[in-house]
Amino acid sequence: MRRLSHYLRSLEGFPKSGGTVSSEELAARGQTTAAQVRKDLSHFGSFGKRGLGYQVDELRDRLRSILGIDRCWRVALVGAGRIGLALFEYPAFRSRGFDCVAIFDSDPKKVGQVWGDQVIRSPDDFESAIAELGVELVILALPAEAAQEMAMRAVDGGVKGILNFAPIRLNVPPKVPVEDVNLVMELEALSFQITQGEQDA
Amino acid sequence: MRRLSHYLRSLEGFPKSGGTVSSEELAARGQTTAAQVRKDLSHFGSFGKRGLGYQVDELRDRLRSILGIDRCWRVALVGAGRIGLALFEYPAFRSRGFDCVAIFDSDPKKVGQVWGDQVIRSPDDFESAIAELGVELVILALPAEAAQEMAMRAVDGGVKGILNFAPIRLNVPPKVPVEDVNLVMELEALSFQITQGEQDA
Repeated sequence: MRRLSHYLRSLEGFPKSGGTVSSEELAARGQTTAAQVRKDLSHFGSFGKRGLGYQVDELRDRLRSILGIDRCWRVALVGAGRIGLALFEYPAFRSRGFDCVAIFDSDPKKVGQVWGDQVIRSPDDFESAIAELGVELVILALPAEAAQEMAMRAVDGGVKGILNFAPIRLNVPPKVPVEDVNLVMELEALSFQITQGEQDA
Repeated sequence: MRRLSHYLRSLEGFPKSGGTVSSEELAARGQTTAAQVRKDLSHFGSFGKRGLGYQVDELRDRLRSILGIDRCWRVALVGAGRIGLALFEYPAFRSRGFDCVAIFDSDPKKVGQVWGDQVIRSPDDFESAIAELGVELVILALPAEAAQEMAMRAVDGGVKGILNFAPIRLNVPPKVPVEDVNLVMELEALSFQITQGEQDA
């Protein structure tokens, strides 16, 4: 699935209209093999023609559809700290169809503050608020101790998926997918690879 | 390797001194199996005693050593934007031994600004600056167009690993591990899982 995102990134680097791309070109940009590209894409139906490659426009649209980003997602941000702000202002979110329709923070000093087109809300009525707003995804950018409770309340409010920045594993029903972004674990992954590499050397 | 980080997180939730933990307890907290825990840990030598479990203190120290976080890492942050600031102020970085010793930004308006104990530097003399400062890891929190060049300059300056927030795949020598954090791809991974789940339902 990550490779599909990479292929889409590559295709977005091509001119806007017309043209074809070979599996070899996609492979080179995605640091994989042409056979892997063909195999990955064949999972989702037939694309391209042998010897002619893929139509850039068509493949781009199909990948967007497979990834579920040919539509707009209604997102709520939970936690209006530094990471929340960085995410809220990250231009690629909105440009890719992730539309932040609400921000929540339990700090009374933050409630009522204005960020862009949003007024920060109290999480007191979180479940009903996200249900009314039709929120589909929540981004949890809050401390570990608060994340599990807010995740379950988000599930109760009907969300379909959670992007979790809190450094814990959330326990939610399997129907609700969770993607974890754990910044400390990323640094630990690096330090592990360097340390093991030095021991092997 | 990610599981090792999760085991360590679990152990850090235990009281500071004494006590033992069974592979079953670690498995439950890490959402894996006791057999997997024993297999993961056995890769790195013998721990624990059959029927007695693992010494919490000893296992915690060993995991820190395996992960390479029983020491301090000298880190440079490249890119003093929103994400850079969120990372710089993220308390867990310093508390886990990742010490930010320099910040670079190519925007002349940012150069000279003070963040905490750091003055933002121009990247003009990047290679020699990071070599002199003994920087081991760089965090690239900058736009895609600038990331590849700064990654190669970091390699020339002698860094051992790169944490990359720019939405591109970096092309660096294999001796320098790269961990990518791509926030758009995380959201796409969620939207993909939800979309595929709805089609299967």
